[in-house]
Amino acid sequence: MRGKENYLSLEPLFNPRTVAVLGASENKNKLGYLQVKALLNNGFNGEIYPINPNSEMIEGLPCYPNLADTPKQVDLVLFCVSADKVKKCLEECGINKVKAAVIFASGFSEIGEDGQKEQEQLNKIAKKHGVRIIGPNCVGIVNTMNGLMGTFSPGLTHVPVNEQREVGFITQSGAFGVLTYIAAAQNGLTFNYFVSVGNEVNTQFSDVIEYMLHDDQTSIISGYLEGEKNPQKLRLLAEQALERNKPIIIMKSGRSLAGSRAAASHTGSLAGSDQIYDDFFKQTGIVRAEDYDDIISFSKLFLSGRLPKGKNTAIITSSGGRGINEADRCERYGLNVHSLSQDTKQKIQKVIPPFASATNPIDLTAAAAITHPELFLAPLQALVEDADTDIIFFSEFPMEWDENHPSLQKFIEICKSTDKLIFVTTFPLEGMSVPKGANALTKNGIPFIPGNLNPIRALSKLADYSEKYLQHMQKQELPKEDRVINKANVKDVLNPGATLSESEASNILDAYGIPTVKRSLAITADEAVQHAKQIGFPVVLKIDSPDIPHKSDANAIRLNVRNEQEVRHAFSEINKNAKWYKPNAKINGVAVQEMLRDGVEIIVGVTNDTYFGPVIMLGLGGVFVEVFKDVSFRVSPLTRQDAMDMIEELKSSVILKGIRGRAPVDIEGIVEILLKVSALVSDYGEEIKELDINPLIVYEKGVVAADAMLVVHERQSKTTIAGG
Amino acid sequence: MRGKENYLSLEPLFNPRTVAVLGASENKNKLGYLQVKALLNNGFNGEIYPINPNSEMIEGLPCYPNLADTPKQVDLVLFCVSADKVKKCLEECGINKVKAAVIFASGFSEIGEDGQKEQEQLNKIAKKHGVRIIGPNCVGIVNTMNGLMGTFSPGLTHVPVNEQREVGFITQSGAFGVLTYIAAAQNGLTFNYFVSVGNEVNTQFSDVIEYMLHDDQTSIISGYLEGEKNPQKLRLLAEQALERNKPIIIMKSGRSLAGSRAAASHTGSLAGSDQIYDDFFKQTGIVRAEDYDDIISFSKLFLSGRLPKGKNTAIITSSGGRGINEADRCERYGLNVHSLSQDTKQKIQKVIPPFASATNPIDLTAAAAITHPELFLAPLQALVEDADTDIIFFSEFPMEWDENHPSLQKFIEICKSTDKLIFVTTFPLEGMSVPKGANALTKNGIPFIPGNLNPIRALSKLADYSEKYLQHMQKQELPKEDRVINKANVKDVLNPGATLSESEASNILDAYGIPTVKRSLAITADEAVQHAKQIGFPVVLKIDSPDIPHKSDANAIRLNVRNEQEVRHAFSEINKNAKWYKPNAKINGVAVQEMLRDGVEIIVGVTNDTYFGPVIMLGLGGVFVEVFKDVSFRVSPLTRQDAMDMIEELKSSVILKGIRGRAPVDIEGIVEILLKVSALVSDYGEEIKELDINPLIVYEKGVVAADAMLVVHERQSKTTIAGG
Repeated sequence: MRGKENYLSLEPLFNPRTVAVLGASENKNKLGYLQVKALLNNGFNGEIYPINPNSEMIEGLPCYPNLADTPKQVDLVLFCVSADKVKKCLEECGINKVKAAVIFASGFSEIGEDGQKEQEQLNKIAKKHGVRIIGPNCVGIVNTMNGLMGTFSPGLTHVPVNEQREVGFITQSGAFGVLTYIAAAQNGLTFNYFVSVGNEVNTQFSDVIEYMLHDDQTSIISGYLEGEKNPQKLRLLAEQALERNKPIIIMKSGRSLAGSRAAASHTGSLAGSDQIYDDFFKQTGIVRAEDYDDIISFSKLFLSGRLPKGKNTAIITSSGGRGINEADRCERYGLNVHSLSQDTKQKIQKVIPPFASATNPIDLTAAAAITHPELFLAPLQALVEDADTDIIFFSEFPMEWDENHPSLQKFIEICKSTDKLIFVTTFPLEGMSVPKGANALTKNGIPFIPGNLNPIRALSKLADYSEKYLQHMQKQELPKEDRVINKANVKDVLNPGATLSESEASNILDAYGIPTVKRSLAITADEAVQHAKQIGFPVVLKIDSPDIPHKSDANAIRLNVRNEQEVRHAFSEINKNAKWYKPNAKINGVAVQEMLRDGVEIIVGVTNDTYFGPVIMLGLGGVFVEVFKDVSFRVSPLTRQDAMDMIEELKSSVILKGIRGRAPVDIEGIVEILLKVSALVSDYGEEIKELDINPLIVYEKGVVAADAMLVVHERQSKTTIAGG
Repeated sequence: MRGKENYLSLEPLFNPRTVAVLGASENKNKLGYLQVKALLNNGFNGEIYPINPNSEMIEGLPCYPNLADTPKQVDLVLFCVSADKVKKCLEECGINKVKAAVIFASGFSEIGEDGQKEQEQLNKIAKKHGVRIIGPNCVGIVNTMNGLMGTFSPGLTHVPVNEQREVGFITQSGAFGVLTYIAAAQNGLTFNYFVSVGNEVNTQFSDVIEYMLHDDQTSIISGYLEGEKNPQKLRLLAEQALERNKPIIIMKSGRSLAGSRAAASHTGSLAGSDQIYDDFFKQTGIVRAEDYDDIISFSKLFLSGRLPKGKNTAIITSSGGRGINEADRCERYGLNVHSLSQDTKQKIQKVIPPFASATNPIDLTAAAAITHPELFLAPLQALVEDADTDIIFFSEFPMEWDENHPSLQKFIEICKSTDKLIFVTTFPLEGMSVPKGANALTKNGIPFIPGNLNPIRALSKLADYSEKYLQHMQKQELPKEDRVINKANVKDVLNPGATLSESEASNILDAYGIPTVKRSLAITADEAVQHAKQIGFPVVLKIDSPDIPHKSDANAIRLNVRNEQEVRHAFSEINKNAKWYKPNAKINGVAVQEMLRDGVEIIVGVTNDTYFGPVIMLGLGGVFVEVFKDVSFRVSPLTRQDAMDMIEELKSSVILKGIRGRAPVDIEGIVEILLKVSALVSDYGEEIKELDINPLIVYEKGVVAADAMLVVHERQSKTTIAGG
């Protein structure tokens, strides 16, 4: 089921011509009754076949004893049966060429090993017959476009449906999903699809995203995610979604579950999975929702059909206090409440009272706004004409303007004359915060979003999305990877389970064109002297042993060794210390290296995440990584843009750009290294468990890997877990 | 009016026996009518005198032509007159011994210079007659305990009053204040006092705090602040509030207005006033509300009468998704969703279904919770008995339990058996989120707070407040300052407007017991050599000039000067470079200093803030300050606790405590330096405009100021602006 047109097999699930309800019942307290009723009440546009050998009729629909007895072939079966009957019923579905099934029952993988086995058997049966399953252990599915209410949850069946229906929603938590569905509907936004994926036996979160991506009725794909089983697929889908300007907005929960893991490398221990998710979303252009309200507000803003061209935001208020608060909020979320040009200010000053303020936020004052609500129009006109302004919003709005009010019509007319993003938000008070014209505004591309839905946070996410989308559109082609070097053969060195010595790891870097220090391995003191003379004094001496990755802990490293005598002395001490530190360590010898001059130390690393596969990390060395955790991640392979974004995202990147009068370092050199590491990881991602280049020393011109360590996987494993 | 018992003069404002309405009217559209009606409708418990020479009766109350004609002396006058009449009316109030007035009219300092003058005249008149004024340019005042509705704002007059009335509220924004008042009332919390302070002509924000501090009916003082005119007073009040366990919670807006200012010192340029406010609030124990909802949620939690003993938080949920989200939220706000002990887990596991989860968040599962709501009881009991748990909250709650339900009674009984903080919050859905037993819970000290009011953020603020309060209570005495050194006479050096040279500044530090480098000033090369020999090689040579504060910019500093010859060479070069850099600079000579060994570089500074007066800053040197802005501020003078908090607040303090196996530095030494700087600033705060000790080098044992610069104020000015 992993074919290219995989999503087409979900068609019978969302748009079945015929639906059978297994376990349908006349008893009004039974789920099998509620399910039939839900389909009827919501006006499902296909045929409904209740299946029950002991009933003739349920709610006016003829019953059938068996799936084999229905007048037409069944596309979709809803399983209103207990867990113990699921396997047998699924087998029957298969025999009767059913194409899709929704299994509500719990008692599968979520209860432990026994349930897991049971679930695997379901998977086998489904595979044999080609049945797409949603669930088990789910709340069901809804398609509000055709009335398919494939659920008996009262939270879904009894919510009124709104006109605005272009947002699909997928959830890994049934209860939270239902709450979000209701909250969205209460705020005028009905999801076109609601999909509770449950245990994802053969239909995963990303499979449903793929379906929605190809569905013309869906403008936004939203979801609640606890853990994506196939991030590489999600990455590809996100790319396609960006091409189609169909945003994916996901609330990823479980930040508190993520923690640093035990790992040999810095990279490994810094890669708490939540930060990888965060950076993965940035990399792919997926919008990360902080909470359910972001999904609603973002959707409302996006459905206006306007994308902000930038982050310059003008606020029109009738309360100084509200204006300042909204400006604070804009700043908190990275939007820019810009200073207006003299010209624009003058235009505004002319049309507002003398005691009102024409600086941004523009304060009409309560007194003026109440007696002269038409004051809301003229500053808007001036801002529409202002080239610097990307976004305009109102923190108050005349409550009495209904859709027939000439001022509202004028307002809409002005808004329609521009493609700037314009919206209205008000302070959230029960029964007092929705202007009479709210619907008319929304219909005309001017969203109204009450303040409790956090519209400014969502706005900042839309501005980020817009930036990413526009950046994406500028490219002619969309490389999946910017490959800067060909595959080298280093397989021999990558022995399963090995921790490579510095020199072994450095040889691999060499093979991928990553500059390393001049070095030679010495077995004897004489050899060390000879190498040192060749390299040129001063030199560095270090133990070379796969068993001693942290050489300074073993006191087995000597810097600034200046002459032959010092080399002999250092050679003997290093050997002695290493043996004392770890008597059984395998020692390759003592590495003699050139002594590098000072530069900016950075760290480039790779860790192989259970879900994401190889992930590349960048940070500045020392305290920046350790104290401030100032690192950025990208899932491999990298594009050049990814590499540049990684650098840009570091707070400490200002140091790379030159601080306190120092010259900037070779940033292009860092980009090249990241792309070379990406190439290495593309070729040997299954072998490399962890890699730290630490430090990578960066100069004004040039970079050098001063040390490296590499851990090879125990055995060659698939890096991502294939779903279903 | 700045006396000790200043707040007593506000008594007639909040508890007048007689209130006159100037400009009272029979015309139902006039403010003078609405004001009279508001007093009547809200059952004001004193006498109401409408003043109007042309009316006999308004709403059944006899009218009086003049203030002089009322049957009893008037305590409070409400000014329903336009701005142009205010002055004359205030004069009349004075003549008639009126004690307090509320002036609504705008058209004063907020409109500019003319208004400012007008307002100053009001201030004079009030001073002459001893009239306390609220306003002008305000919405008015409300005392919901005695029915004093001193406002005609429909947002206040028409809001139903709840039973819970122990929170006072003061606002610098009328409109935002009214919205907050309504939102609180809609959520079951009516403010006992509402005070819109307007232009604060002679009653400031902090004056009203002082009144509430001494008011027994007020348990919490809350407010909306744009800028406090008298922070030193607020600091003293905050101290007293902490002693009384009467929290002050303030929403301070205008983060976006704050910016870095042009200043000669690092300290000055880093002191954006918003960070000073933030740190000032931490210093004083004032709770900073992010938004109006924090005020409501914090109050509801605090009014339960329970303070959390720590931050260990247990969550009981019936939805895995909701549980994870709340745990995420706890983590985001610094609370700890702790691992439960084996013992507690076993107790819980015994009483919940096998497929439910006994790990924190405890997930009862929807299926179980709906069919067996009594499941909410047993885990609660186990958590109440768990010594590690400080806070317990429910993210779902049985909606059907009303106050007579035996399970609710049992629930309340368990809660009453403990002093742990327990509360209930639910997902915010219109009409679906308030359990039937919500009021019964609240009455019994178990707050119910809907999710849209951000209860977890408020909870974290309560936990911080609790920590501060308990810390405060442990102290026997409450020093205002921990004075570690006596006043020294350095006044001669502090010439108005001067920028002191390093040696001049260092002499001042010496006088205050702050270790500085061994140094001598040399006028000739011979002297330099002599000094260097005395100090001991290697030495540092630097230009000493008040006109060259940044010596490295002038290339007028030489490190590691190792012998006589090098001294002579350095001396000549430094002089040459300094003259080239600034030909007219006044040059005192070349300072010869001991070459300090490496240590951790920190920066200690002072800036004189317009409102806060002298403010002391601490940060780690270099990029920590410049890139990460990792600094902390405290308003002078400091207590030892303040100094320790400053260190603790720095992210980079981990470096001070020893990182990568290094020994910790002399943290007690840093505390001493901060206290000595505090002493200096206590003695010469009006003279010192800016001071940077940068770097202060800290060793395992000992600290040394390696460089210093000090800017003296142009003229001796009061450091704080005295209000009204």
